[in-house]
Amino acid sequence: MQPAGRALPVALDAMGGDNAPGEIVAGAVQAVRERGVPVVLVGQPRVLSPALAEHGALAEIPIVRAEEALAMDEGALASLRRPRSSIAIACHLVRRGDASAVVSAGSTAGVVATGRLRLRAQQGVVRPAIAVTLPTRPHPTILLDAGATADAKPEMLVQFAHLGVAYAEVAFGLRRPRVGLLTIGAEPEKGNKIAKRAHELLAATPGIDFAGNVEGHDLLTRKVDVVVTDGFTGNVALKTLEGSVRYAFGQLRETIEESPVARFGGMLQRGRLRALSDRLDPEAHGGAVLLGLNGTVVIAHGSSHARGVSGACELAARLSSQGIVSRIGERIAPKSHRPLMTWGGTR
Amino acid sequence: MQPAGRALPVALDAMGGDNAPGEIVAGAVQAVRERGVPVVLVGQPRVLSPALAEHGALAEIPIVRAEEALAMDEGALASLRRPRSSIAIACHLVRRGDASAVVSAGSTAGVVATGRLRLRAQQGVVRPAIAVTLPTRPHPTILLDAGATADAKPEMLVQFAHLGVAYAEVAFGLRRPRVGLLTIGAEPEKGNKIAKRAHELLAATPGIDFAGNVEGHDLLTRKVDVVVTDGFTGNVALKTLEGSVRYAFGQLRETIEESPVARFGGMLQRGRLRALSDRLDPEAHGGAVLLGLNGTVVIAHGSSHARGVSGACELAARLSSQGIVSRIGERIAPKSHRPLMTWGGTR
Repeated sequence: MQPAGRALPVALDAMGGDNAPGEIVAGAVQAVRERGVPVVLVGQPRVLSPALAEHGALAEIPIVRAEEALAMDEGALASLRRPRSSIAIACHLVRRGDASAVVSAGSTAGVVATGRLRLRAQQGVVRPAIAVTLPTRPHPTILLDAGATADAKPEMLVQFAHLGVAYAEVAFGLRRPRVGLLTIGAEPEKGNKIAKRAHELLAATPGIDFAGNVEGHDLLTRKVDVVVTDGFTGNVALKTLEGSVRYAFGQLRETIEESPVARFGGMLQRGRLRALSDRLDPEAHGGAVLLGLNGTVVIAHGSSHARGVSGACELAARLSSQGIVSRIGERIAPKSHRPLMTWGGTR
Repeated sequence: MQPAGRALPVALDAMGGDNAPGEIVAGAVQAVRERGVPVVLVGQPRVLSPALAEHGALAEIPIVRAEEALAMDEGALASLRRPRSSIAIACHLVRRGDASAVVSAGSTAGVVATGRLRLRAQQGVVRPAIAVTLPTRPHPTILLDAGATADAKPEMLVQFAHLGVAYAEVAFGLRRPRVGLLTIGAEPEKGNKIAKRAHELLAATPGIDFAGNVEGHDLLTRKVDVVVTDGFTGNVALKTLEGSVRYAFGQLRETIEESPVARFGGMLQRGRLRALSDRLDPEAHGGAVLLGLNGTVVIAHGSSHARGVSGACELAARLSSQGIVSRIGERIAPKSHRPLMTWGGTR
């Protein structure tokens, strides 16, 4: 489908998200024109063609037909009922080798379920995980699982550590990313049963630079590069973090607007405050990455606008071209394959 | 020990906390002089007497001897090994009727374990819970369990709801506090196994105004009055919230200090920003309350200074005088007692 030498396009689910298809199409145009990321839109041509025409982009962005879509409030089961949904077709394009990666702003549960069903887990990966990046500097901190697997086993958390390390290496060029386990105290025996067992396992896993337990207040202090937890705790922590930062800024705005003197002070800071609030905006980070499948899947925020969508496309293209899937494969090769390599070796 | 008509004192663990005994003693003096809360200090007289003398407060604040103390890094087991620790003696004073409540800035695990051992759970209460207040307005939002029981059963979460409702009624005078379950999606089936089962149980519990699921970003939006969760998730959420608010303010300070114009703007806001940051300071809220025991126990932040300690004493005295323990008893009376009341009634 693609001429040799050109990058494969990102398959963008045009029907998923609170602002679909308008902002999704606008994001596709932005990705192509401003970020140089080729995109195919997957969805209903009769809706998407006019939207693309408005941007004068009909010649730049192909459409792949998918008449069905998963609604934002539909859960995981809907992905079984709708094999021809836009997100399913987008996964199919990756599977077939016609796209490099999938991007969707659709419901997380729907994207995860469809991704697992259509792309399947990589060999050796028991459960995929959603990795998000938290806005630390000089590089972000990776938190996973942020919600793919609510009831995780301790063994899965060890795999999540491998997924997160591969992500940190590929996306941020880190050499030996430090991994922390999210729990409720610094000592190894602090936590619930899952966390305590995961601590033991992580401490005994070669290839993981395990820095021990981290707590909720460590998420934004760069104590570690990768924070591992189960999908329930990770999702609660992520949403608490986002809500708390939003709350702090809201309180600040209120405080500044309460008095004319303070308001004047606020005007003097406006540019810098906007830059800061942009940096902390979840949309700025391109979205969450579903790791562990046979293909790169980026889940943009459900309320994404064009900027968030184009950022997600850029992230997906980058992770895919830098080989995140094979990097994970190297880390989680099934054990039964390892002896073959050892036999052929010199030891 | 106390003359009739005078309020019983709060038993303050003088040896617990990062800043013990200096700041604890200063907090006791503040509680007595500025907040009108009678206090007894529990700890080593040879350390406490000189400290009290420095404040000229030897005549105002009695000392109850306890030669041992739990170290901040000692876990729950230490409470068994040290039956004469300052926190154990403080509990003993409440049990004996010589103090109204216990306050400690010691290690949470140590206070919880000692409290359970010395004061025992109220009849019908399976596990105590730590309730904290989040800085919403016009009244705080209660979050529990914030860390007493890391591996909770769904049935315990229903009891935590009763504990939280009693707290909201007693401390904030709410009539029908609305209860939310902390999980990872609005729909009843969203969550891990514990949360899903707890949802079913809460929805079927009379006397609880159950508003359904809440998520991490709802903690500071006053969506509900009481948020219920297991002690692992609650502790992660609380620390994430505190860390995120601190982070947002730190980023803000950096941003303001980066440019002279913005810095000048910041000076114009200084008073209001300080008031806001005070309001969001965990110390301002008096500390966490360990609910479900035969006695009121308030756990002040480990790093508390005098202000946090005196606030914790005031909170403990207020909850005790307003009958939090009996209010919880009314809600969690063992079922076997209820028929007796019905037989004697007119129905």
